[in-house]
Amino acid sequence: MAEPQPLNIVFALFPGVTHLDFTGPHQILCRLPGAKVTVASLEGGEIEADGLIFAHLPRLTDVEACDVLVVPGGFGTTEAMANPAFLDEIRRLAAGARYVTSVCTGSLVLGAAGLLKGKRAACHWAWRDQLSLFGAIPDPGRVARDGNVFTGGGVTAGIDFALTIAAEIAGEDVAQTIQLAVEYAPAPPFNAGRPETAPARVLERVQRLYGQGMPERLAAAEKAGALV
Amino acid sequence: MAEPQPLNIVFALFPGVTHLDFTGPHQILCRLPGAKVTVASLEGGEIEADGLIFAHLPRLTDVEACDVLVVPGGFGTTEAMANPAFLDEIRRLAAGARYVTSVCTGSLVLGAAGLLKGKRAACHWAWRDQLSLFGAIPDPGRVARDGNVFTGGGVTAGIDFALTIAAEIAGEDVAQTIQLAVEYAPAPPFNAGRPETAPARVLERVQRLYGQGMPERLAAAEKAGALV
Repeated sequence: MAEPQPLNIVFALFPGVTHLDFTGPHQILCRLPGAKVTVASLEGGEIEADGLIFAHLPRLTDVEACDVLVVPGGFGTTEAMANPAFLDEIRRLAAGARYVTSVCTGSLVLGAAGLLKGKRAACHWAWRDQLSLFGAIPDPGRVARDGNVFTGGGVTAGIDFALTIAAEIAGEDVAQTIQLAVEYAPAPPFNAGRPETAPARVLERVQRLYGQGMPERLAAAEKAGALV
Repeated sequence: MAEPQPLNIVFALFPGVTHLDFTGPHQILCRLPGAKVTVASLEGGEIEADGLIFAHLPRLTDVEACDVLVVPGGFGTTEAMANPAFLDEIRRLAAGARYVTSVCTGSLVLGAAGLLKGKRAACHWAWRDQLSLFGAIPDPGRVARDGNVFTGGGVTAGIDFALTIAAEIAGEDVAQTIQLAVEYAPAPPFNAGRPETAPARVLERVQRLYGQGMPERLAAAEKAGALV
């Protein structure tokens, strides 16, 4: 049997990343035939995410190129969007990638890097509207595709997102094989995963938790000079 | 507002763990009020999982006690089941825990530790039947509960499992708040996540991939002296 073509997949991490934004897709995409997965950050070394410490990360500047670029999101998105060196690396890797992708508020990073102008993109529901600040068209879907740009919704959407990309790259049989291997037949105990279906008091609680981050995020976008 | 009661949650990792087995539940459970999450291993230090390196782990022997013990699974389960020192720590922590839990083939570790005798338990579908080797009753559900033992099915079932535990510990409002925050409204692109729904050729492919591990797993159980 012929060796599969090498497939270089790069996850670009930053401090304050939400780990499930990338561990979900990582667990799917690392099983693709020929996959060589690199999880990197601007400084290299270690990244702490929600108490987990991911170590021995190479620097993004040492990653020559990739086929698939994945940018996760998280509460550190604001700072990542305001970091010109990080955005430079995102732009450089995106320029050579077959697929430019993100999960959750990672699409705001792509936006701040100027990569979503005129493109439809998904995002975490609570920040989705802010995509328009970067000339993107907010897409309420769990996974959005616009040309070679694939974007996922909030956090857990990364699993649906990764299976979609797996099928695009390696075909439906491979994607379904991975889905069965990770037993992805979700059965949430509640129907509260979207603002449209969550009880009002639950939605209010999350909005209260998240509302505080909004002004800083706008300020960061302005600072990055990325507002349209 | 009163401070929430401290809630000590311990994830017991081992070499060859499947990272999404614990990163999924971790992302949910670390958001519980009062949660203090410890991710530990027998040797401490670093654990590599599917290419990701989790660092600065304390030793299980240095963890005094916990309220919730979570044992994930993975391709290293066989070795974990045959490691008496690891099983000793699992038994010790389980003895003082309010909830003894597992995801995926982690239930086989609980079984090998003698903690599932006469209890219903879930497991990754491909290894579920082997629970009976340890006197457990295989449960085809995505999340199974028997008294204070909560077990999840394969890999991604850990998210449904964690939301179930979140509701048990902190109530449905809190669980739903976390569900909305991580936008858990799954929409798999295919219906191949269970052997009953996957196309026959996909099921055969996964069975072929996994079938090889079975005899070694049985041998490990015998070696652990845990067979009923």
